[in-house]
Amino acid sequence: MAAEKWVYMVTAQTPTNIAVIKYWGKRDEVRILPVNDSISVTLDPDHLCTVTTVAVSPAFDRDRMWLNGKEISLSGSRYQNCLREIRGRAGDVEDKEKGIRIEKKDWEKLHLHIASHNNFPTAAGLASSAAGFACLVFSLAKLMNVDEDSSHLSAIARQGSGSACRSLFGGFVKWTMGSKGDGSDSVAVQLADEKHWDDLVIIIAVVSSQQKETSSTSGMRESVETSLLLQHRAKEVVPKRIPQMEEAIKNRDFTSFAQLSCADSNQFHAVCLDTSPPIFYMNDTSHRIISLVEKWNRSEGTPQVKPYLAVSCSIF
Amino acid sequence: MAAEKWVYMVTAQTPTNIAVIKYWGKRDEVRILPVNDSISVTLDPDHLCTVTTVAVSPAFDRDRMWLNGKEISLSGSRYQNCLREIRGRAGDVEDKEKGIRIEKKDWEKLHLHIASHNNFPTAAGLASSAAGFACLVFSLAKLMNVDEDSSHLSAIARQGSGSACRSLFGGFVKWTMGSKGDGSDSVAVQLADEKHWDDLVIIIAVVSSQQKETSSTSGMRESVETSLLLQHRAKEVVPKRIPQMEEAIKNRDFTSFAQLSCADSNQFHAVCLDTSPPIFYMNDTSHRIISLVEKWNRSEGTPQVKPYLAVSCSIF
Repeated sequence: MAAEKWVYMVTAQTPTNIAVIKYWGKRDEVRILPVNDSISVTLDPDHLCTVTTVAVSPAFDRDRMWLNGKEISLSGSRYQNCLREIRGRAGDVEDKEKGIRIEKKDWEKLHLHIASHNNFPTAAGLASSAAGFACLVFSLAKLMNVDEDSSHLSAIARQGSGSACRSLFGGFVKWTMGSKGDGSDSVAVQLADEKHWDDLVIIIAVVSSQQKETSSTSGMRESVETSLLLQHRAKEVVPKRIPQMEEAIKNRDFTSFAQLSCADSNQFHAVCLDTSPPIFYMNDTSHRIISLVEKWNRSEGTPQVKPYLAVSCSIF
Repeated sequence: MAAEKWVYMVTAQTPTNIAVIKYWGKRDEVRILPVNDSISVTLDPDHLCTVTTVAVSPAFDRDRMWLNGKEISLSGSRYQNCLREIRGRAGDVEDKEKGIRIEKKDWEKLHLHIASHNNFPTAAGLASSAAGFACLVFSLAKLMNVDEDSSHLSAIARQGSGSACRSLFGGFVKWTMGSKGDGSDSVAVQLADEKHWDDLVIIIAVVSSQQKETSSTSGMRESVETSLLLQHRAKEVVPKRIPQMEEAIKNRDFTSFAQLSCADSNQFHAVCLDTSPPIFYMNDTSHRIISLVEKWNRSEGTPQVKPYLAVSCSIF
């Protein structure tokens, strides 16, 4: 490969996902391994999503990245882990039309430029890092002709942001916590595709577009260290809820689906409150929306008669 | 005793108490027996308090009560239980100056008029029912010359409102959950009197004077029925915190006292959130106050250097 001034690029779009059984708490901070399984719904890729363009050129002298138009550092271990894992799996690439040929061994020397945009507020509880890292890993895998299935890619995306592993599939996705120390079995699997329950509508009400005061990463760490309820949730509550939620999704049972997801969202916020110092991810507007929905459902009678609207706030 | 038109009355004043290890959840709804021990600080009786005047006269044809100037029904079981228990323990009363003599057996036939005032918002999270029932039981016991110590009276007040049992003592008070089915061992005991730690200052910031949307009674019932964290708190968390709090009070250890009470307050709110439908007793103002205090304490360095301010919201 000659050092010509070509640029080869790939663009990908990845949606956010909304957890209906939540991930909150890591058992391994470096590999990003969770204390419990989680289940999410992937949004329509045309709505809340990240669009990332990754480019490689012999003209680039170092890896660089721009998030929403602003250059950010790639020195953090999360980016470095994803880049290293993807580079290690890179294959030969050939674009005959452009006359570009990159061999497997070249990827170690070539540098990348990455431009990523979210079409929704960053770090406001809408899983921007999930969509972001999923899109980064997916676009790089395309660029570098990585021959791995989505579950294997999910284990790489997981090392960027835990819930990113769930954004590599459409529909309903389970992230299995795994039991191995190296995290190789902590991957996402699709429970049902996006056509399985296509009349399910998700309404997102943004009650604040400000960045969260406590990032998910530091919030989770503090919850694991200080909350006396978190381990009980992880060990006793979630393992019972996961099969119930799988069953509700399988049967398109909206009553169970909504009740489980509301209860789980509230319990996640409860663990945040039980953290020292307490983490507040809901405000008076969220409280009012939840109370309104609860009253509406009650006034409609039993949830069997009318659908029970799922409300979930600050979801990762 | 002739049916003359005399009126005999007693007035008493009882402060509220603020739980530092919280009571939330009953194991017996009728006798008001809690799922865990609790510890409180009784406020200065000159500040937030209930003033109750109880009067008896042969001219009264039925028991009546006025709360903050408005007549309320005494038909509820909580009032009836307190009145029955106190009447059952009534003694002979003699006021020679007024020429009044009431014999033990007369109390069953005589009727009462009760006027009670809170000098603070009712049902806004400031333990109005605790002060109210403690004052009712205490003033009736005085009126009827009941020969029982405060712990025995606390078991009667408990049947009006659980936390009322703790308002019959000044200083620091523990309500032992007890183990007997009839609740006779579920009584309050004084841990230390009001002089023990007289430079402890309690700041009450009323963030809303509106009545709570969910009463403590129905909130607790829903938490017991639906929260998957409540029993873990009651069985695992509180039994460890109680001796730690007793030790902190004994040693006037403000750092431990404040850390334990903040953690316990937050955990109580966490259980409320984990309830279906979720109960919100904090609002954005409470969140801001708590965050401000947390930041202040952190900026002062370790809590050993500067006192750690206890913030606790919607306390019963």
